[in-house]
Amino acid sequence: MADTSSILDRRARLLGPNMTTFYREPVHVVRGEGTWLWDADGNRYLDCYNNVPHVGHAHPKVVEAITKQASTLNTHTRYLHEGILDYAERLTGTMDHGLDTMIMVCTGSEANDIALRMGRAMTEKVGIICTDNTYHGNTDLVSQMSSKRTPIGGPVDWVKKVPAPDTLFPLGGSAEAQPQAFADEIQRAINELEEAGYGFGTLILDPFFANEGFHTLPKGFLDPTVAVVRKAGGIIIADEVQPGFGRTGRNFWGHDRIGLVPDIVTMGKPMGNGHPVAAVVTRPEIMAEFRTRFGYFNTFGGNPVSAAAAMAVLDVLEEEELVQNARDTGDYALGLLKDLTHPMIADTRGAGMFMGIEFTRDGDPEGATTFCKDLVEEMRNRGVLLHLMGRHYHGIKIRPPMCFDRAQAELLAETLDAALKAVPA
Amino acid sequence: MADTSSILDRRARLLGPNMTTFYREPVHVVRGEGTWLWDADGNRYLDCYNNVPHVGHAHPKVVEAITKQASTLNTHTRYLHEGILDYAERLTGTMDHGLDTMIMVCTGSEANDIALRMGRAMTEKVGIICTDNTYHGNTDLVSQMSSKRTPIGGPVDWVKKVPAPDTLFPLGGSAEAQPQAFADEIQRAINELEEAGYGFGTLILDPFFANEGFHTLPKGFLDPTVAVVRKAGGIIIADEVQPGFGRTGRNFWGHDRIGLVPDIVTMGKPMGNGHPVAAVVTRPEIMAEFRTRFGYFNTFGGNPVSAAAAMAVLDVLEEEELVQNARDTGDYALGLLKDLTHPMIADTRGAGMFMGIEFTRDGDPEGATTFCKDLVEEMRNRGVLLHLMGRHYHGIKIRPPMCFDRAQAELLAETLDAALKAVPA
Repeated sequence: MADTSSILDRRARLLGPNMTTFYREPVHVVRGEGTWLWDADGNRYLDCYNNVPHVGHAHPKVVEAITKQASTLNTHTRYLHEGILDYAERLTGTMDHGLDTMIMVCTGSEANDIALRMGRAMTEKVGIICTDNTYHGNTDLVSQMSSKRTPIGGPVDWVKKVPAPDTLFPLGGSAEAQPQAFADEIQRAINELEEAGYGFGTLILDPFFANEGFHTLPKGFLDPTVAVVRKAGGIIIADEVQPGFGRTGRNFWGHDRIGLVPDIVTMGKPMGNGHPVAAVVTRPEIMAEFRTRFGYFNTFGGNPVSAAAAMAVLDVLEEEELVQNARDTGDYALGLLKDLTHPMIADTRGAGMFMGIEFTRDGDPEGATTFCKDLVEEMRNRGVLLHLMGRHYHGIKIRPPMCFDRAQAELLAETLDAALKAVPA
Repeated sequence: MADTSSILDRRARLLGPNMTTFYREPVHVVRGEGTWLWDADGNRYLDCYNNVPHVGHAHPKVVEAITKQASTLNTHTRYLHEGILDYAERLTGTMDHGLDTMIMVCTGSEANDIALRMGRAMTEKVGIICTDNTYHGNTDLVSQMSSKRTPIGGPVDWVKKVPAPDTLFPLGGSAEAQPQAFADEIQRAINELEEAGYGFGTLILDPFFANEGFHTLPKGFLDPTVAVVRKAGGIIIADEVQPGFGRTGRNFWGHDRIGLVPDIVTMGKPMGNGHPVAAVVTRPEIMAEFRTRFGYFNTFGGNPVSAAAAMAVLDVLEEEELVQNARDTGDYALGLLKDLTHPMIADTRGAGMFMGIEFTRDGDPEGATTFCKDLVEEMRNRGVLLHLMGRHYHGIKIRPPMCFDRAQAELLAETLDAALKAVPA
């Protein structure tokens, strides 16, 4: 397609090399509505992957909120405006554990960059622990906690990475042993940081372990880990950029789903349905420690338009009962996916609007990488957008907007069934 | 006012302490249009300070562009979309010196965080030099280059701060000696970084020295500095967050105004008239070095809505001839300000829509701090918003939206004349 190749040429010329695209034939999208996307040739795609348009592409209520506020006023927090306050009240109202104060920023990376500094401020220790197959963002600091990308200047030795939990290959050899085995890994990392003289300050993790493959973990999985961290005087950050805002269907936050009580919660992508808005929520004493020392100000963060966009997302989630839909349609879709059969399917799992299938070849995940890549392409060519997951890109990840419905779940399952048959194993 | 105190209470409770506001009686703004702001009681203010609403508060063309694109599609750069490409072409078209590639992000802090890593990638050196009275943003890395805020964890010793140029107290003792004296300071900092084993990588500065007080400097002022940096193999970042997009009236970019050829240009605040969008522009080889090593991706950065907002700002600047207006009305306003008399006025200067008056008491800037703070309050109470500038907050900064007109310049000057007479010296 001339169109695609000319756009790719312009991208390389204007944006530089190594600009990743999805799919061998990238999709040139021009319009979106609900769970649908259209390309420049008028082809329609069922979007089973985008979690940023949380309540659906181009949701009219979110657009209306942005338009109304942008045509009235957009300014910063050195003037008084109630938008950010109404939102802070509403957002913190969804959380327990004394998580009552908020900083509003523009990206999840900014949120994690702040959260890590809150941990540093509270503990006076620079040592950070994260898992070894995750992503927390792209600032200089946060890029140290993002796998599959080498930070400019190389990895620092005050960040320790522990093996992520796994469904097929559980730490400690069994699902039962895994919670303590994960905590033991954390303890080992703490010891290393203390021996190196950095001390241990902060553990950052996605309580749903989304990038790690959202493995099946029991509620309370992190209890032994929390005990280890608390004993060492550490701070726990729950990065809710992926599981937050009800995506997992039964809980509004991933940390509640797994029974974790974090000190700091960060969020981003789905928060404004695509509008650049993100946030850090924490207890008042942590907020006070950070803000008193640093006097953080973010020009765009928490501006009236961002607050209005974020508030509209919460309104739509409630009005359209989308968290319930994530649970009900998610359960239905997961059932359909579990009915699919293929010799390479090793595990089908998920929660709410976050589903995946892990593949192996003769028990080997790495043997399934090529198959999964081909499968994703086949689905794209059949009009269903999804993508890869897992340490070796040996699974498929399904993460549609929260308005995904039963007919669409059926279309997904039928298309996947056909694609599984069509792609050479 | 009960309204204000209840909002301040909610801010303290929900957002934490140390949330700076402008003015002793902060303004509770509810509406903006052009250069005007209205508070909750219906009082109107002439906005002589906000540079974020670059083409005017709530500009209908920018709002329309945002609405149109948000109701059509908002997604990320892993799909193809022409919005970011059209914008990159248009933006880089305003720059010479081979600055032909762009990364679009959400905040000026993100832009500088990337730019500094580009410098590190190109030079393999961590040492950074900036001035001692500036602000480049709020990420962990960039907060090291921001004065008046102590980074969490304290200042690092691989960032060296040099004295900023000054109008009243020029480096080297005279305006003539100042260019070489500034370069000498840079050379001293380079030597310190090299002796400490860090090496010198990057010089970051605002070529208009906006936070330092936009001192009167000749074109070519930075030539000796550039020679020193080039000899040491360093990279130069021009932070155009404040002077960019035509604000200084005669040049679209601050670096052209002073005759600087930077390696990297960053921009933010005015770029989307309040929409969270920012960018890094650099030469293709620097972009390639950074992107090849790191594979940077920003979920919201360069999304179709951000690109549309930013493009609309460029359109309005052209259609309404606002750069010309910044020059003409800026000259007119500066002339009116220069006609004001007061025993404490030490210097009145500016360029385009960036003006200021520096005050001293018996030649001492610190003696003027209280007077300037009172003056800013008096102006606010008379319905004109402006703010402080200078190392000791001993001046007033005037930086209105680019649509500021002659009648408004007259209102500003008349109000300031009256306020100067009303505030006890």
